[in-house]
Order: sequence, then structure tokens, then C-alpha cells
Amino acid sequence: MAILDRFLQRGVRNGVLEVARPDGSVRRFGKSAEGFPEVRLRFTNSSAERQILTDPRLGAAEAFMDGTLIIEEGDIMALVQLLRANNRWDKGGEVREVSALKKMRGRAITLIDGMNRAARAKANIAHHYDIGNALYRLFLDTDHMQYSCAYWPREGMTLEEAQEAKLAHIAAKLALEPGQRVLDIGCGWGGMAIYLARHADVSVKGITLSEEQLALASERAVAAGVAGRIEFELVDYRDLAARGETFDRIVSVGMFEHVGQAQFARYFRDCAKMLTDEGVMLLHTIGRMGGPGATDAFTRKYIFPGGYIPALSETVAASERVRLMATDVENLRLHYALTLREWYKRCVENRDAIVALYDERFYRMWTFYLAGATAAFESGSMCNYQIQYARNRHALPLTRGYMAQREAQFLQGG
Amino acid sequence: MAILDRFLQRGVRNGVLEVARPDGSVRRFGKSAEGFPEVRLRFTNSSAERQILTDPRLGAAEAFMDGTLIIEEGDIMALVQLLRANNRWDKGGEVREVSALKKMRGRAITLIDGMNRAARAKANIAHHYDIGNALYRLFLDTDHMQYSCAYWPREGMTLEEAQEAKLAHIAAKLALEPGQRVLDIGCGWGGMAIYLARHADVSVKGITLSEEQLALASERAVAAGVAGRIEFELVDYRDLAARGETFDRIVSVGMFEHVGQAQFARYFRDCAKMLTDEGVMLLHTIGRMGGPGATDAFTRKYIFPGGYIPALSETVAASERVRLMATDVENLRLHYALTLREWYKRCVENRDAIVALYDERFYRMWTFYLAGATAAFESGSMCNYQIQYARNRHALPLTRGYMAQREAQFLQGG
Repeated sequence: MAILDRFLQRGVRNGVLEVARPDGSVRRFGKSAEGFPEVRLRFTNSSAERQILTDPRLGAAEAFMDGTLIIEEGDIMALVQLLRANNRWDKGGEVREVSALKKMRGRAITLIDGMNRAARAKANIAHHYDIGNALYRLFLDTDHMQYSCAYWPREGMTLEEAQEAKLAHIAAKLALEPGQRVLDIGCGWGGMAIYLARHADVSVKGITLSEEQLALASERAVAAGVAGRIEFELVDYRDLAARGETFDRIVSVGMFEHVGQAQFARYFRDCAKMLTDEGVMLLHTIGRMGGPGATDAFTRKYIFPGGYIPALSETVAASERVRLMATDVENLRLHYALTLREWYKRCVENRDAIVALYDERFYRMWTFYLAGATAAFESGSMCNYQIQYARNRHALPLTRGYMAQREAQFLQGG
Repeated sequence: MAILDRFLQRGVRNGVLEVARPDGSVRRFGKSAEGFPEVRLRFTNSSAERQILTDPRLGAAEAFMDGTLIIEEGDIMALVQLLRANNRWDKGGEVREVSALKKMRGRAITLIDGMNRAARAKANIAHHYDIGNALYRLFLDTDHMQYSCAYWPREGMTLEEAQEAKLAHIAAKLALEPGQRVLDIGCGWGGMAIYLARHADVSVKGITLSEEQLALASERAVAAGVAGRIEFELVDYRDLAARGETFDRIVSVGMFEHVGQAQFARYFRDCAKMLTDEGVMLLHTIGRMGGPGATDAFTRKYIFPGGYIPALSETVAASERVRLMATDVENLRLHYALTLREWYKRCVENRDAIVALYDERFYRMWTFYLAGATAAFESGSMCNYQIQYARNRHALPLTRGYMAQREAQFLQGG
């Protein structure tokens, strides 16, 4: 396959990739280099290579999932790293992907996303989260079950510590006052809501579209002894907004990625509507660098149907229109890569359990997803933003010194 | 003038506005309310009211400048506050201004701004800055001559202290390393460049388009004993970028407002070109809340010809395209209002000196500008953003703890 060879010759300059073919031939690309992995893969039949060339966006992922592309030395993480590290985003590595065709594809996806109404949203969320809490228990932190970027302020932290640090980091930015009502949009398994109810004198409403999440979140709140101050509900944020309830604080962590581009205006309009005049909101979301663009095909097909990763400019443009004032933005840059590496490691360690729950193909799909995401956050075009919003410029202290102070208080036990 | 009366009846609900007319009649609008000023104004002839109705955007300002609208009780600051506080931005007070007509006006201005080439840029800057350093010496802080938003972390600070705190705040965000080369785009009277050269082991190049600024900046660098580590030059950033020089750090404070919307892409392209791979940039700029829109007519005509106040989404959209990664954004919200109040106070105190330098009309224009800007930052649609950029996600520490640490070090004398 001369075309694939040419691609690999250009794409692998540092590090080594060996490709073994069904006919017994082996080709070697690149050269040994510090910090770059060495990987050997084998195509079990000639259709695998054709698959990659026919559908460059999905072919390699599907060949790997199907077992026609086997990694004999190294693993999927190393393979993805090898390709990404040779094509770093900030070195212009992804520029070539931006073509007129890609833009058209992006627009088509946007049109489809426009239909991300309540029924479809629930199906999309079920696709990812109702596959069973058991899977998430196998790789997320045990204490808070956070399925979003952790915060790693110190060397040598465990995932559990880093997720607790993340909760404290966000709680501090909410500038909570006693007695306030907090809304958690996309509450997952209740980690954030339970943390806030335990460590601050507030009541929390957590909403999700996943029945599996709702059940476990409720159970965990009871176990934590804070069920009386938390209300979990299976409801779409749009339906909640229509009821006219308001909240002093809104927090939304790792949920905006599911909203879909066409619903951004609606999302922020509803948030602004639910926020009191002196309200504060904290949005924690993955961001796409380099400007707006379509989310990759693999993620859309297998991982997050209906999802869209926004560029910061898109998020801010949508929130500006409804007079939500961006008061603070932090780009967590490498924190998500550190988190994903830990998730990947735990998945690999729990390989047998995951295969027992699903099958080999699922395990390969899941590790491909985590490896690809790690590379995207390390040297590709993904990052994670925490955007703090207020409606009123007097709603927050004059300087952001309170953030570090409150964070330290939370970490000392509230 | 029934139309103006109706407008004031709607627009002044809290606080009191008395309007005396040439025919001796007096009308009173609003009611006494805590925190809202009471103002009495007089029209010296009937043409003043017509002027306001004919040109709502400029009429009142010009009537005040011409002396046909006289403030008999209170001052221009109180009058502007009264109108703004009754029409707060976050309460929707400015929504009505956004009309199709206004959008068309915005587009027309953008087209004209598109021609903000080097020769015109220099003329625009000369309009504002070459009117004489003497004026700026009368109201800016004496130590650093900072003509941009100060930073007020503590109660009871002087303007001098708050501007020094601003310099430390920005210097900290630059994450400077010994021996680095820093570019200051729009260096003004050299305050930032001199501060960095004095307090960090770096060399600085400061560029401006104002000959008056260049002369004074150079003189001040000599007086501060750091002339050997600073090079000031009268050069357009576009011409500097064309030379191919690179810098480890770029700082640009209160200059982006002069760039003009049509040149945003060019500005960031040139910044990205001048920044090293591991570079960091700090952009300090006024921001328009509520999304993109035209800068007000008074400011454009009398204060900053060619200027454009960007919404955060516009700034970020332009910088994303050239792979400048927004790593941190701070909205200084009320800090500029505090700064402007102090500038206004010093102008009022130095009224005689300003009138002696120019004339009464200039003095009224200048105080109208400062009063209007104060109100815009207090309850209108203006704020001030500090946006930190990096090209490489490894260029900065993992968390932003270094900012507070370095700031404290700078404040303790570097």
C-alpha cells in the first residue's frame, strides 16, 4: 500500500513505527528519538489498509476495534502518541485537516445537531452513560466519580486527590454564601452536588438525563448523609428553565460538550433565566483550540453522539448575547491529559473486567477513545476551560484572591 | 420640548434631575433616592434641546461642550451617573439601543476602520496623544504615567499605588525568566517598560506611534537608570513584525482599543509571528459586554478616532485563528471605574491648568469623556480584560498559583 506508506513516511519522523503486512513484509518508519515511542503493528488482512485509506477519519479506529489492526509492540496509547507528537497542534500539525470539505461537513453536522431536542438529547446521553455504572466505577476515581478533567496542583497526586482538588477549585470559584441554592446541570453520579452539600452551607439541585446516573447519585447522597440538602431529578435543563425556578449559583461540569452548537444560545438563555440577579455560574467544558470546527468522526460515532466541542470564542459569543459576563477564564491545558492517562491506565489494569462486562471490541474502542483524547490534550487541539460568569459586576469580590483562599479552606475540610 | 421630557420621565426614576429652560420654566424628574445623585441643568437657549433631539448620540455632549447645556447643581459626572444608574446594562438598560440601524452604522464604521493603515494609525494616535504630555501629567499617576485601568486590591489605595499594583499584576502574568526579551506594543510614556527593566532581569523594546510619548518615555528611562536595557522606537507593530524579530514575551496594555476591528486578524498574526515558540503574551484591553457593537459616537469623534472596543468573543475569535491559546482571562470589572473616578477628580482639581493649556470647551469635553467612561464601567457595558496567551501548552506552570506569588514578589520590590 504505497499511499499509506507515503503518509507514514511524512507523519512519523521521530520515534519508530513498524508495520507488518499479511504477506510477511515489514516496513519501518521514523527513527529512535527520546520521548517518542516505538510501536509495531500488524495488519491481519489486506482489507484493513484499504479501510483506512477509504475512510481516513474512522478506518484506523474501526480496524483496531475489529482486530484487523493489531498492536504487537507498544499499545494504542503509544501509537496515538507517536502520530500526535509528530504533528503537534502548535507547530501547525493539524492545519492541513482544515479544508473546505471539512467545513462543509461541520455545517452538515451543525444542522443535524439543531435537532438536539429533549427526546434525542436523552437518547444521546443514554448511549454514553446508560451503558452501565459498572464500567465507570472501573476507571473513575472512587471517591467522587468525576467524569471530567481533574486538577493536579501538586506532583505525585492520586486521581482521587486530583478530583477532590478539582471540586475544591470549582467550589471556590462559585463564591458560595450560606443558604444559597445551587443548580448542577449535568450532575453525573452526584460528586459535585454531594461535595457542595457537605462542605458548604447550601442546598443543591442536580439534574441529569441518565437514569443510571440518577439512581447512583441518589444512593450516594444518602450514604454521604446529605440527601436532605440535595434533590436529584431526571430532567432536561430546558424543561427546568421553563418552570421559572431560579438559583443563586449554577455549576455545569463536562455537560456543555453534549449541548450541541445549535443549542448554545438556548443553553445560555436558559442559564441566564435561572440565575438570580446577583448570581454566579461556573462552566467547566472542553474547548477546541484554533477556532470553531467539527468534532472528530470517531468521537461523534462511538463516544458522544450529538456532542460538539466549542471553541472559546463560540462559547463566549453565545453567552455574551444574554448578558452573562465572563468574569474569569482558566485554561486547564495539561490537566485533562494527566486525568486521561490515569483513566487509561485503570482501564488497562481492569481489562478483564471490562471485557467480561462487554467484549474485546468494546474494550479496544474505549481504550482507543481514551488514548486519542490524551494525545489531543497533550499536543493536539483540545483543552479544558473553566469560565466563571456573573450577571452583575458587583456580584463578586473586586479581585480573585478569594479563589485561592476559599480553595485552601475547602481542601482543609470546608 | 415634550419629546425630551417624555424621555427624561422614563429615564430618570431614581434620583432627581431638574431642567431649567430659557423661558424660565423648571421641570423636575425622578425622586430622591439613596445612592442616586440630584442634578440641576439649564439650557441657555432653545437650540440646545433641538440639538439633542436631532442627534441623540452627540447632541448632549456637544451642547455641554458648547456651554448651551449648563450644569448648575452637581457636575457632569453626577449627570451621567444619574442617567446610567437608571438604565443599568445588566438590567437590560441598553438593549433598546441595539437596532438594525445601529448595526448598519457599526458595519459602516468597520469598513472605514479597514483602512487603518500605518499613516492613518499614526494620525489617529497623534490626535489623542500628541495633544501634549502636559495634560496627561495633570491627571495620571505621577510615578508610572499609566493611561489604562489600574488595579485596586486594597481599600484606600492612592492612584499611584493602584497603578504600581497593576504593573505588578501584569508582570506576574508574564511569567518572566532572566534574560528574556520583552516587547511592549503601545508603550505610552514607558511606565511598563521601565517597571519591567527595573524589577526583572529582562530587556524591553517599547513601541509607540506618538512622538510626544517617545520623547518622554526615553527621558524617563534615563532618569530611572534603565535606559541601557530599554529601546524605545517610533514604529508601527506591523512594520516591526515585517522585520522578523522575535520576543519571548509580548505585553500590550490599552493599545488594542486603537487597532480597529478590521485589523484584529493582522494584529494577532503579527503578534504570533513575533512570539517565540515558548512565548507568552499579555493583552490588557477594554472589552464591550453584550457582544460586538459599534463604539459610541462621542468617543469616536472626539476621543479615539479609528478606535474600536472589542467584545471578548471577537478578540478570542481573532487570536484563535493564529493558534494563540488563551490561557487565562481576568475581567477587571470595577477597577476601571475606580481609576476613571480618580482621573476625573484630578482633572476637576486641575481645571484652571487644563483651561490654561487649552480652553473651557476642551475641559468640558475631557470631563464629559471621563464621566461617561466611568458610568460605562460602573453600570454600562464596558469592562477591562487581561488575556494571557501562550503558543505552547507547556509554556506556563500547570496552575496559576505563580501569578499571586510573583505579584507579591514584585510588590516587595522585585
